[in-house]
Amino acid sequence: MAIKPSTPKGTRDFSATEIAKRNYIRTIIQNNFEYFGFQPIETPSFERLETLTGVYGEEGDRLVFKILNSGEKVKKADIEALSSGQYQKFSRSLSEKALRYDLTVPFARYVAQHQNELTFPFRRYQIQPVWRADRPQHGRFQEFYQCDADIVGDRSLWQEIEVLDLYDRVFSDLKIKNVKLKINHRKLLAGIAGKFGVKERLADFTIALDKLDKIGKEGVFDELISKGFTSDSLLLLEELLLLNGKPLQQLKVLKSILADQPEGIEGIEELEFIFKQFNQSTLNSVQLDFDLTLARGLHYYTGMIVEVSPPDSTKIGSIGGGGRYDDLTSTFGLNNMSGIGISFGFERIFLVMESLNLFPDELLPVTQVLFINFGSDAAALAYSCLSKLRQHNIISELYPTEAKLKKQLGYANQKGILKVVLIGEEEVMKNSFILKDMNKGTQKSYSIKDLISVIS
Amino acid sequence: MAIKPSTPKGTRDFSATEIAKRNYIRTIIQNNFEYFGFQPIETPSFERLETLTGVYGEEGDRLVFKILNSGEKVKKADIEALSSGQYQKFSRSLSEKALRYDLTVPFARYVAQHQNELTFPFRRYQIQPVWRADRPQHGRFQEFYQCDADIVGDRSLWQEIEVLDLYDRVFSDLKIKNVKLKINHRKLLAGIAGKFGVKERLADFTIALDKLDKIGKEGVFDELISKGFTSDSLLLLEELLLLNGKPLQQLKVLKSILADQPEGIEGIEELEFIFKQFNQSTLNSVQLDFDLTLARGLHYYTGMIVEVSPPDSTKIGSIGGGGRYDDLTSTFGLNNMSGIGISFGFERIFLVMESLNLFPDELLPVTQVLFINFGSDAAALAYSCLSKLRQHNIISELYPTEAKLKKQLGYANQKGILKVVLIGEEEVMKNSFILKDMNKGTQKSYSIKDLISVIS
Repeated sequence: MAIKPSTPKGTRDFSATEIAKRNYIRTIIQNNFEYFGFQPIETPSFERLETLTGVYGEEGDRLVFKILNSGEKVKKADIEALSSGQYQKFSRSLSEKALRYDLTVPFARYVAQHQNELTFPFRRYQIQPVWRADRPQHGRFQEFYQCDADIVGDRSLWQEIEVLDLYDRVFSDLKIKNVKLKINHRKLLAGIAGKFGVKERLADFTIALDKLDKIGKEGVFDELISKGFTSDSLLLLEELLLLNGKPLQQLKVLKSILADQPEGIEGIEELEFIFKQFNQSTLNSVQLDFDLTLARGLHYYTGMIVEVSPPDSTKIGSIGGGGRYDDLTSTFGLNNMSGIGISFGFERIFLVMESLNLFPDELLPVTQVLFINFGSDAAALAYSCLSKLRQHNIISELYPTEAKLKKQLGYANQKGILKVVLIGEEEVMKNSFILKDMNKGTQKSYSIKDLISVIS
Repeated sequence: MAIKPSTPKGTRDFSATEIAKRNYIRTIIQNNFEYFGFQPIETPSFERLETLTGVYGEEGDRLVFKILNSGEKVKKADIEALSSGQYQKFSRSLSEKALRYDLTVPFARYVAQHQNELTFPFRRYQIQPVWRADRPQHGRFQEFYQCDADIVGDRSLWQEIEVLDLYDRVFSDLKIKNVKLKINHRKLLAGIAGKFGVKERLADFTIALDKLDKIGKEGVFDELISKGFTSDSLLLLEELLLLNGKPLQQLKVLKSILADQPEGIEGIEELEFIFKQFNQSTLNSVQLDFDLTLARGLHYYTGMIVEVSPPDSTKIGSIGGGGRYDDLTSTFGLNNMSGIGISFGFERIFLVMESLNLFPDELLPVTQVLFINFGSDAAALAYSCLSKLRQHNIISELYPTEAKLKKQLGYANQKGILKVVLIGEEEVMKNSFILKDMNKGTQKSYSIKDLISVIS
């Protein structure tokens, strides 16, 4: 019985047209990464399971695709774990490697492993697929691309400026206008937690705050109360959430409120440097906003954090994000390696481009010339001419068989081929070629030399 | 405790330099695929297990990487199979998908699945990684790239000519000379098996013949005897193996020997067409050889088969291969879809390029200009100038901190940056820039406008 031809759920085939569009985005991101001095690295599709376990939280551990051990190695299956319902433990007894879940952890592993070969500050970019065992839904896939750029080995704030500039350059080149970059600072959030008197519970605070979009202010407050935050804290938070005005004005107010929180002040001063710098220089496609409620889920950020929103009209979620981290590589035994990284949400940027109709026409290189096949000697002459055209990098094809002319022209039409070459008996004798323009319907006779120059 | 930073065995990290070399090969292959009218497709990294099971033979089934089912799905583990030592069966109870083992089966699945969207004859190329649970050894990896081009939907022999031409074009562009294309035909082999009186045992014959390189003539003969081939057959085979001379002469002899084997004659006539065509046209980098002993392991070939050998001096095995098949998509319910495909052995071509020293210098785009950081106002001016350079697509960096000049110049040296810009107090006042040539040691002052034109 025939096997049903289908892809696994949550995965996609890409046609030539889709690939051309995806490459359009990819090339723009990649070129800008390179103008900014980032160089590419690539890591394997799978990592040792140990490298990926315990770093993405409980949810992440569940979503990592594990690779089943091969052959007899499955003998080591932990049957006891299975029968006692410890499915994660059972799974771990059957697997030693797992598919890449993001590009950040493999990058940290890379830096630690190759530290002696690298020049620091090290600027790398990486554009590769990642895999997550997520429930497939609109715009969410089990296999998708990430595009990351990171600089590690230095704390200079110029790098914060650079990565924000990089966002502007990429979205300008993609012609996506009105992109919002929301900025906040982990140290500012730490200062606020300090002001609440619960500095050690920064994680609880940021996790709750991160849900503001989803569960609203009331929801966040309820969660904070359940975690034991005092009503005084919530009054202060209420006040902070009402702050408005220009970023530098808001930061001034915060500076006085958090005057006794040195870590908070440090965060504020870094943000001031960033906003002042962009007061002087021009951003073309992005608008920089201070957003006190921006928390970002990932635990490893320690400095500025950023999240990127596409134009409101697209109704699409965040299309990028990043921030500064101080301790990413210590899991792998390499300490004191501060870095900053940003990510472009490739699949969502694709959706934004589609929804705003921003892809240029004619991205796909199509066959420029089709040689009609009239059989034997004519086909042989056609093929020799075709070879010459290809040597001049002209995309060309010979229709493979001596089919009816109508069928051959139909093939040209279906594939969008605009020029066809006809070689009949007379042309074989004269060693000439008739070039037909499929749009205009006109045709004209050429020598091979002229044919090449007319087409190129 | 820190996790040891290392990649799983059989996998590799790629540095920027390695990626630049790999992209050099990839771009040449890809461009030629496109000049020949092939368009790209991409398929997911994993397929449904059913799609990949039973098609690669027993060895293949063992080498396919299975993905462990997520979460509670592992409950369905077939414990009975485990305890009775049926490890493959046990593994299948834990997995529904598997990593791509080659590009051929996903392509067949793609054609069957999307047949109504495609224009036939359909020309596709695909350059993607594949994964095999092979024992890692020199030049053999668990993750590696394949580059395939196929045309399906037509039997025209012009397509045999095309794919051989394509090999020539790619190896010419890569500047690998003296590449051998060994050609044979499955129908000719079938004719020989018919002459032996064991036509139904073509598979036994080709499998034994395929080992000629490894086990020698005696080994092949022993295997054929053990499979019940008669001594008359072996005498004839001995005679055939002694054939030499030009391809068309050998084919003439074979034509008389196999006169009563219509399938064999058909194969011979197709080979005659191919060799005659290349008598007339010129091949630049490859030499076309008839090789009666070429069998190729894969079962699905039905017509011409080809295998590509690099120059002998490299001592590297086959760097490509392919052939015509008539029935690839029938597994997926699509019959009568003849096709021809060739593959480039990417990783081995890389080794050949390295061993013959064929990579051009300076493939890697390096930072063109480093701005030295003298702090505060000077750094701000440097950054604004840097932004302008990047807008002119000049790869540039600002050294992130006000480190000692020697350290900053050392960074430029290590990264091979040839130009540095110095901005001191005087330059801030005059809004000018000193450009230093790291090789010559010379330096000169410029306005920003002149700086850009000097560097671009």
